[in-house]
Amino acid sequence: MIIVGENINATIPGIKPVIQQRDSRKLIQLAENQVKNGATYIDVNVGTGQGSRRDEIDSMMWAIQTLGDVIDAPLCIDSADPAVIKAGLSVINDREKMINSTKAEETHLNSILPLAVQYGANVVALTMDESGIPPTVERRLDACRKIETYSKKYNVPMENIYFDPLVLPISTDGRQAMVTLKTLSAIKSIFPKAKTIMGLSNISYGLPGRKNINAAFLHMALYEGLDAVIINPLEKTIINGVLTGEALIGKDRHFRRYSRAFRKK
Amino acid sequence: MIIVGENINATIPGIKPVIQQRDSRKLIQLAENQVKNGATYIDVNVGTGQGSRRDEIDSMMWAIQTLGDVIDAPLCIDSADPAVIKAGLSVINDREKMINSTKAEETHLNSILPLAVQYGANVVALTMDESGIPPTVERRLDACRKIETYSKKYNVPMENIYFDPLVLPISTDGRQAMVTLKTLSAIKSIFPKAKTIMGLSNISYGLPGRKNINAAFLHMALYEGLDAVIINPLEKTIINGVLTGEALIGKDRHFRRYSRAFRKK
Repeated sequence: MIIVGENINATIPGIKPVIQQRDSRKLIQLAENQVKNGATYIDVNVGTGQGSRRDEIDSMMWAIQTLGDVIDAPLCIDSADPAVIKAGLSVINDREKMINSTKAEETHLNSILPLAVQYGANVVALTMDESGIPPTVERRLDACRKIETYSKKYNVPMENIYFDPLVLPISTDGRQAMVTLKTLSAIKSIFPKAKTIMGLSNISYGLPGRKNINAAFLHMALYEGLDAVIINPLEKTIINGVLTGEALIGKDRHFRRYSRAFRKK
Repeated sequence: MIIVGENINATIPGIKPVIQQRDSRKLIQLAENQVKNGATYIDVNVGTGQGSRRDEIDSMMWAIQTLGDVIDAPLCIDSADPAVIKAGLSVINDREKMINSTKAEETHLNSILPLAVQYGANVVALTMDESGIPPTVERRLDACRKIETYSKKYNVPMENIYFDPLVLPISTDGRQAMVTLKTLSAIKSIFPKAKTIMGLSNISYGLPGRKNINAAFLHMALYEGLDAVIINPLEKTIINGVLTGEALIGKDRHFRRYSRAFRKK
């Protein structure tokens, strides 16, 4: 499966100064360390939540260029602002790339999908609309249907759409893990060409032993056919969760990745 | 879910002498320790593979009477020999009980199912026949259909049947985890009244890191609705796997069991 490393994110303590001070050495190290630990895609989010839009645009262009010169891995341009995404895409050199993210909201789809076509980028498409994350499977699928309609309109191939069935904490609603997993399952059957992606950590918010809950949830999602996951690849419990899960569902031929990782430990 | 503790089994090194020497103190300790660690059912298998049938019958009667006097937990009488099962059932005092096991084989069904009716026992029903464990979902379901036919004939309620979809090592055939899980899923929809049960450890045979593989497999099985599992409850990885899995699928209301277990650690 695709493992998107989430560690280059300016909202994580310690990462903001790397962005603000244009610390290229540290930025590259953050990416290389994730790749070494299993990431196959590097997410880049430079939004500090403080600077101007111009600041975020400059930061994204710097980060993408800096990484693009040194790292081979595909890059995932992560921002809520289409202008920042466009800036990142404009300086990315030849490689697979992903936009993180759009949602089933007209204005957003109308700005993001043309960029996806222009730059040949994959798109993370959140199964939510302007009113937030729907609590039910059916309404999350409505969001997918709207995204599909717009993707057709803009000629974005469904193969490039990564639906995110979205995760809400089970501590506030014990049924939410099943809602997410059943949404994932329905997406796989209703939109067979589309891919699926998920972050994990929200599921365990407010509970002790979070890493084990996240890994168990990942096992269930892998079983349902999840294609990509957004994680901190330095967390051994989660990376092991990917490896054991893939071995079980028959996606690790002759257990090569599992065995290699086991020997390394 | 029902957690059947598997530690009283004469084929496990160290357990055989407990049986042979009629060590009541040790036998009770083995059961109590499992209950303390989360077992809700105690499996009893006294077959050493060496003594006579008479030896095994005597051992089973001793073990069931010894435990029945002290332990409150339901007991699971585990033997390949219907005469041994009958002996165990004949001395069990008033409590829930289980026969482990029958399979889709005529002679076996004709001896086990009447005992299930006579003693009001649940029955573990292996989805295999006289020719062994079928490699495909459809043929394991054929075994279920045959077991259902005989259960109707003997008036064993389907609620008392615990189908075991059976686990083969993924190290010899990488598709076997999915075969088991898809069999489980099909059983839940074709036989909605029946229950399901599984041992786990076979899945990881021949691979390193077995406990993690077993736990990941358990998470997937719990997601598919597995009702009971046969495990060593002293293995923390597996017991935690039950707790996190049940929290995720919404079967641990307000996370009471999960939180209690977490505080205990």
